[in-house]
Amino acid sequence: MDINCDMGESNNALIRGNVEEVLNYVTSINIACGYHAGNHTIMRQTVRNAIRKNVLIGAHPGYPDRDGFGRRNMDFSAEEIYDMIVYQVGALQAFVSVENETLHHVKPHGALYNQSANDQEMATAIVNAIYDLNPAYILYCLAGSKMAKIAKEKGLQVYEEVFSDRNYNDDGTLVSRLQSNALIQTEEEMLVHVKSILTSNEVVSVQQKKIKISAQTLCIHGDGPHALDYAKKIYELKCQMDN
Amino acid sequence: MDINCDMGESNNALIRGNVEEVLNYVTSINIACGYHAGNHTIMRQTVRNAIRKNVLIGAHPGYPDRDGFGRRNMDFSAEEIYDMIVYQVGALQAFVSVENETLHHVKPHGALYNQSANDQEMATAIVNAIYDLNPAYILYCLAGSKMAKIAKEKGLQVYEEVFSDRNYNDDGTLVSRLQSNALIQTEEEMLVHVKSILTSNEVVSVQQKKIKISAQTLCIHGDGPHALDYAKKIYELKCQMDN
Amino acid sequence: MDINCDMGESNNALIRGNVEEVLNYVTSINIACGYHAGNHTIMRQTVRNAIRKNVLIGAHPGYPDRDGFGRRNMDFSAEEIYDMIVYQVGALQAFVSVENETLHHVKPHGALYNQSANDQEMATAIVNAIYDLNPAYILYCLAGSKMAKIAKEKGLQVYEEVFSDRNYNDDGTLVSRLQSNALIQTEEEMLVHVKSILTSNEVVSVQQKKIKISAQTLCIHGDGPHALDYAKKIYELKCQMDN
Amino acid sequence: MDINCDMGESNNALIRGNVEEVLNYVTSINIACGYHAGNHTIMRQTVRNAIRKNVLIGAHPGYPDRDGFGRRNMDFSAEEIYDMIVYQVGALQAFVSVENETLHHVKPHGALYNQSANDQEMATAIVNAIYDLNPAYILYCLAGSKMAKIAKEKGLQVYEEVFSDRNYNDDGTLVSRLQSNALIQTEEEMLVHVKSILTSNEVVSVQQKKIKISAQTLCIHGDGPHALDYAKKIYELKCQMDN
Repeated sequence: MDINCDMGESNNALIRGNVEEVLNYVTSINIACGYHAGNHTIMRQTVRNAIRKNVLIGAHPGYPDRDGFGRRNMDFSAEEIYDMIVYQVGALQAFVSVENETLHHVKPHGALYNQSANDQEMATAIVNAIYDLNPAYILYCLAGSKMAKIAKEKGLQVYEEVFSDRNYNDDGTLVSRLQSNALIQTEEEMLVHVKSILTSNEVVSVQQKKIKISAQTLCIHGDGPHALDYAKKIYELKCQMDN
Repeated sequence: MDINCDMGESNNALIRGNVEEVLNYVTSINIACGYHAGNHTIMRQTVRNAIRKNVLIGAHPGYPDRDGFGRRNMDFSAEEIYDMIVYQVGALQAFVSVENETLHHVKPHGALYNQSANDQEMATAIVNAIYDLNPAYILYCLAGSKMAKIAKEKGLQVYEEVFSDRNYNDDGTLVSRLQSNALIQTEEEMLVHVKSILTSNEVVSVQQKKIKISAQTLCIHGDGPHALDYAKKIYELKCQMDN
Repeated sequence: MDINCDMGESNNALIRGNVEEVLNYVTSINIACGYHAGNHTIMRQTVRNAIRKNVLIGAHPGYPDRDGFGRRNMDFSAEEIYDMIVYQVGALQAFVSVENETLHHVKPHGALYNQSANDQEMATAIVNAIYDLNPAYILYCLAGSKMAKIAKEKGLQVYEEVFSDRNYNDDGTLVSRLQSNALIQTEEEMLVHVKSILTSNEVVSVQQKKIKISAQTLCIHGDGPHALDYAKKIYELKCQMDN
Repeated sequence: MDINCDMGESNNALIRGNVEEVLNYVTSINIACGYHAGNHTIMRQTVRNAIRKNVLIGAHPGYPDRDGFGRRNMDFSAEEIYDMIVYQVGALQAFVSVENETLHHVKPHGALYNQSANDQEMATAIVNAIYDLNPAYILYCLAGSKMAKIAKEKGLQVYEEVFSDRNYNDDGTLVSRLQSNALIQTEEEMLVHVKSILTSNEVVSVQQKKIKISAQTLCIHGDGPHALDYAKKIYELKCQMDN
């Protein structure tokens, strides 16, 4: 199981997350590409940090909305979605190429991730853009989503994604962030949840039903007061499983 | 002699220049990359237009200053200059690659072009960024500049550039835009000036001295009331020379 | 009947509309405030032009989306809507105040105008922001909208607005821009439409039904190839009516 | 002696500084106005926090360069400087006015502060903009600067400013941030420095010379690991002096 984390979300003045140390406890990262967060300098630094730590590099394209951190829904045509993926992934892959490395994956960010997960037209635009850039790139997307299906049909490799700190509904969708129980609250519950994913591809829904989640990557967070501690514990859990 | 023109400087609401028609009278274009002008949608459209018209495609990176159109001097470290070239050229080359074409050249824009032309550190940063991206890319830069020399030493191919509508000083530099005689005013004078460049690699300075200009590309403008008419006449002049 | 026109939508490099001349044929203008278009320099110049031509000045706040010209739907909370109105109207009223003049009205722009017209929560946020800034400001909004009603209940003066070049449905709403008949196509039809508004507060819907439109302001456009010509003809029509 | 601190520099995703607690140890704050940092939502929240804590509110206009946090030198004409002050102060004073309070002062930020301090033309543009907005506003600027002199001649009230953590040259100017000894390093030295300012209007230069600094406001910082602790100690020192 791959463990991924969003990175490169700072700008020159505002720091977000424990950038350096979290790199020790993940196997891949998703680097912001300057639309919702990050910039050319942060991108270069983050790419170099990842290479030094031997962590796989992905592009993390989002909506052009720095102030809202790409979390606000916006209306774009499918063609504009295609264009914004090409632009952002293109910029990041250039930073990877000048370091003589290869981009590993693409993971849409925030509202772009959520709005497109089960939207045929948006999902197709994203899948096509990635495929046209490089059919060897892997798409990270919501486990069980329509996007995962469309990507596989196109011939893209997909890592379906689960979240270490999110609750699930009976149908395998995430509990909306608009509800109070969207996030798993305690460290203990979070570790039980992650262990269940790692050992048996199962999560227990908020209605206490066991549901199957087939995932190849697990998303953790690099910001917040406990981020580093949680990252370390999840990583240790994964290492135990691997042995 | 190559004839180049800046393009893709519009946004979704504001149109700049006679985009389509000017393409008939140039051999290469420089496409804005979203920092000083342009955006992902305009970039894709302009790339497709250029391919359809068989015109060579270059990246036109500038300062991150849309409001000032990249014409305002700004202070950046050499490392930031490197980063902003990688980002912008990376984004444009992605649009070219999804159309199965290759980027031909890079031409810095506006204040970035002028501030770096004879600045050792800035010029080196730009040259290194282009070389690291792809040593086959051609650099378009001010004829006779320090940047042209640095690029050649690095091993980059260079097209030294002259301007169809700018007056020159005795030492081969451009008359500053801060002076009233920066621009050639009449069509007649402009055509004499261009003809002299095309036939004898010479321009007559504002002090009436003949000076040698070794150039491989001639810059024309796509905006302004006479842009299309001038472009056509310059193109015809070039075609006569070629025969 | 007031005739209003959007203005100040250019930036330093891209010119939109026949700014100066259209001022001769309107009685009020709506100045972009830097979010969807315009900037501090254009705002000052446009304010001075309006004062010189004796035209009433309004603020034209929009979504923070320059690239999409404020025409893309975006999700904002009511509180954020309130904040963005205060910010933008605050900035414009400062330019008016340093010229010792007073702001006359506020007209939301683009997607903000459309999304809020019949949305209780958004309309209330806009009305409250304007009222808190200055209860003497007049709100320009869609004739017959929920926003017009909310503003009047709050105690704001309202100019309900009709459009010179838009077709209407039987229920008094505008034909959506997504439909091919959203815009009135010929000059002749446009003048019939405007004359009907000016003389009898009536428009004929696309289904050929006469419907009553109570409006105090008529919106014309300052950009497009025929803008100036149409503006002049509408203004002459209004002057004939006034006599 | 007034104690001021920059605030409202976060955006929706990136938090900068110990906003709430620092308010207990200052008498005035300078709120970012959306150009170099901050936004409409942060501005409203910061204005409300300041009012609740009974802290005087100032506008903190900067260059339109969020990515560089307004710290990069940029070239603007005097007229553009005037315009960007009117825009930003106008926006902030609107947030203050909807809370039925009054703006207290204006303090330029970062590169705008430094580039204009001793530049006749820039300083005049800033002074004129503030005066035109409201001649009762107080200007915070570098102690002993040309700007302080120009403002007083114009009739503006001025608070000349000293810094709690910066070293000074023999001529009363700040040691440049480009030099390694720009900042006072230890808490002990910082408190000696501040005490000398508060008791005797004197600082000891890096060349060990006692120099007179006439100041009415002392700038402290709200970010950094020791910010809150230092703020508290400086505040206690001031309170002892006041008694």
